[in-house]
Amino acid sequence: MTDRYESRRGKVLRAVRKADVDTLLVSGETNVTWLTGFSGDSSWLLLGPEVCVLISDGRYQTQIAEECPGLDAVIRKPDVKLHTAAATAVKQAGVRRLGFESHLLTFDAVEQLAAAVPQCELRPAPGRVEELRAIKDADEIAEIRAAVELASRGFNVLRASLTPEMTELGAAHELEQAMRRFGAEGTSFETIIAADDRSALAHYRPGREPIGDCSWLLVDWGAETRNRYKSDLTRLVVFGKPSKKLRRIYDIVLEAQTRAIRAIRPGVTCEAVDRIARDHIKSCKHGRNFGHGLGHGIGLDIHEMPRLAPNSQTVLAAGMVVTVEPGIYLPGWGGVRIEDDVLVTRGGHEVLSQSVAKDLGSSLVD
Amino acid sequence: MTDRYESRRGKVLRAVRKADVDTLLVSGETNVTWLTGFSGDSSWLLLGPEVCVLISDGRYQTQIAEECPGLDAVIRKPDVKLHTAAATAVKQAGVRRLGFESHLLTFDAVEQLAAAVPQCELRPAPGRVEELRAIKDADEIAEIRAAVELASRGFNVLRASLTPEMTELGAAHELEQAMRRFGAEGTSFETIIAADDRSALAHYRPGREPIGDCSWLLVDWGAETRNRYKSDLTRLVVFGKPSKKLRRIYDIVLEAQTRAIRAIRPGVTCEAVDRIARDHIKSCKHGRNFGHGLGHGIGLDIHEMPRLAPNSQTVLAAGMVVTVEPGIYLPGWGGVRIEDDVLVTRGGHEVLSQSVAKDLGSSLVD
Repeated sequence: MTDRYESRRGKVLRAVRKADVDTLLVSGETNVTWLTGFSGDSSWLLLGPEVCVLISDGRYQTQIAEECPGLDAVIRKPDVKLHTAAATAVKQAGVRRLGFESHLLTFDAVEQLAAAVPQCELRPAPGRVEELRAIKDADEIAEIRAAVELASRGFNVLRASLTPEMTELGAAHELEQAMRRFGAEGTSFETIIAADDRSALAHYRPGREPIGDCSWLLVDWGAETRNRYKSDLTRLVVFGKPSKKLRRIYDIVLEAQTRAIRAIRPGVTCEAVDRIARDHIKSCKHGRNFGHGLGHGIGLDIHEMPRLAPNSQTVLAAGMVVTVEPGIYLPGWGGVRIEDDVLVTRGGHEVLSQSVAKDLGSSLVD
Repeated sequence: MTDRYESRRGKVLRAVRKADVDTLLVSGETNVTWLTGFSGDSSWLLLGPEVCVLISDGRYQTQIAEECPGLDAVIRKPDVKLHTAAATAVKQAGVRRLGFESHLLTFDAVEQLAAAVPQCELRPAPGRVEELRAIKDADEIAEIRAAVELASRGFNVLRASLTPEMTELGAAHELEQAMRRFGAEGTSFETIIAADDRSALAHYRPGREPIGDCSWLLVDWGAETRNRYKSDLTRLVVFGKPSKKLRRIYDIVLEAQTRAIRAIRPGVTCEAVDRIARDHIKSCKHGRNFGHGLGHGIGLDIHEMPRLAPNSQTVLAAGMVVTVEPGIYLPGWGGVRIEDDVLVTRGGHEVLSQSVAKDLGSSLVD
């Protein structure tokens, strides 16, 4: 375990050198976890060639000893603020040019830190750890596979359990319980289960009315493994014969997704993949009804680098795992979104959620 | 409903005037919710005497119309960044001195915003909305009462359901299901259930080993209402006759909590309340084993203003709701924490979680 974290810290040190700072203050909670194995919050990692110390507090003293054997830690007292404890560590390490996570650290925190280390130059170094986290190693890919498998098994239970008396919220809870039964830590985000016209709300919260005789449910869900890796899927469950309109919209979305997935391989930019799906939806006169990006990386966080979106110039590389989730939303009628988790491989890609069927026929429930 | 939000926005405008800015950019998710009723994310509210507009994106268009009838909204397209859309709104409103939430907005976001509105002066205005949110109105107090009641009922089910075969994690899930059955949206944070020595870890994650014949469980849990208000409680469940050491530690913690709660009334500083509990624990030679603050406000967020902690000079006022949760943690042996939710009233205080018994006798289970 230690080796994995040391190797990741080594990568950060190499990236930091390019950023022309001698040490990086890692303040992002997930970044700290990825670099140390520590799973708590409110703790920063000071990382440079001469220093590697976790700045935390008394709540976490024992946990740090267990989760991060051998890692240096400063335990601040309740009356010492985090930035003050960090400043002390910066001074002790003799840091002259400190990089900080300017995309995560608040404006106030930077001001306070700067005031506390007047002899040290602070330089924005945004996204260094996230860029590295975007490329998953074999352990991480196995974790995400497990998260997809948990989501898939839970969904099968949900489909088998649905009744008209069930509410959207009840169905969401049913799904979560099933995933937990299979070993999931829980959901990777708040499950969306939306019947009929509610499915037009891209970030809907499940309601407390019975599903009744709705025509379809949009289910957007994911599982989290014990080690906090996440999956993120969307499927429709269609009751009875789908209307012509639903068929038409579904086909457009599925074709957009299929084309985008087909384009995924190392060397392609994220905006190019987004454009393929978007152009297809536009060509079917629904461009205005696809109001979000095509997808995002998943891992320890549910939204990670890279973003598949307009203006996202990140180049895909082997080891990245992204969602591909085009949608068409027609207010008052409903929405269709189809989402899979896709691993970028050396030769192209692998759809990790391949086993969760998505042709409209397989969405049918009687 | 509209009236409630308009009245809150009126309070912010008065507070903003004192901060010597003409308009405030509200970027905190919960702050936006509190001021508009909008429950989504990634959306900012520009609020001034001449302007009140929510800057959001296409995912939320219909939801905003439903949740915030009458509220102006700008829906940015996927290729327009949030700070760019905000800058356009700032220019259109002719804002000259813009306050921003410097305790929440990232360093990069401020830089990007500043570059996009060169004609406008940006001034840090941290915590304006949070200061107002610290004082709960009657509706909010009713919501928190409901959240406490849900937690209390769930805990009764858990106590009645415990078996040696159950794992900490299974018990946590049992508790959550029970609270949901009574109408909770879910837990207000990840439930902590820690047996014996694991209770020394203040932020422990429930494990997958059977509880077996442990001596006690520490349970730190809370419920969230449909409207997202939260409760936060901690109790011990003790199996069989408690050891002398457990009795002694429990008595110290309970006495520290009782003294601190007794001191709660309008006009008292938060650090004074913290000190009362801390001094008692110190006088019993366990000062070093109480490594966190005494408590925190609760509401829409699980951690809100005010903080009961050393150096927290906030003065208590009627309408604040705080947790009071002293603890003693002895690595290798275990920990004891007792936590209640306390409303500051004009005449003093009311323990909202009064009905959840906490004398050691009532913690016993055979």
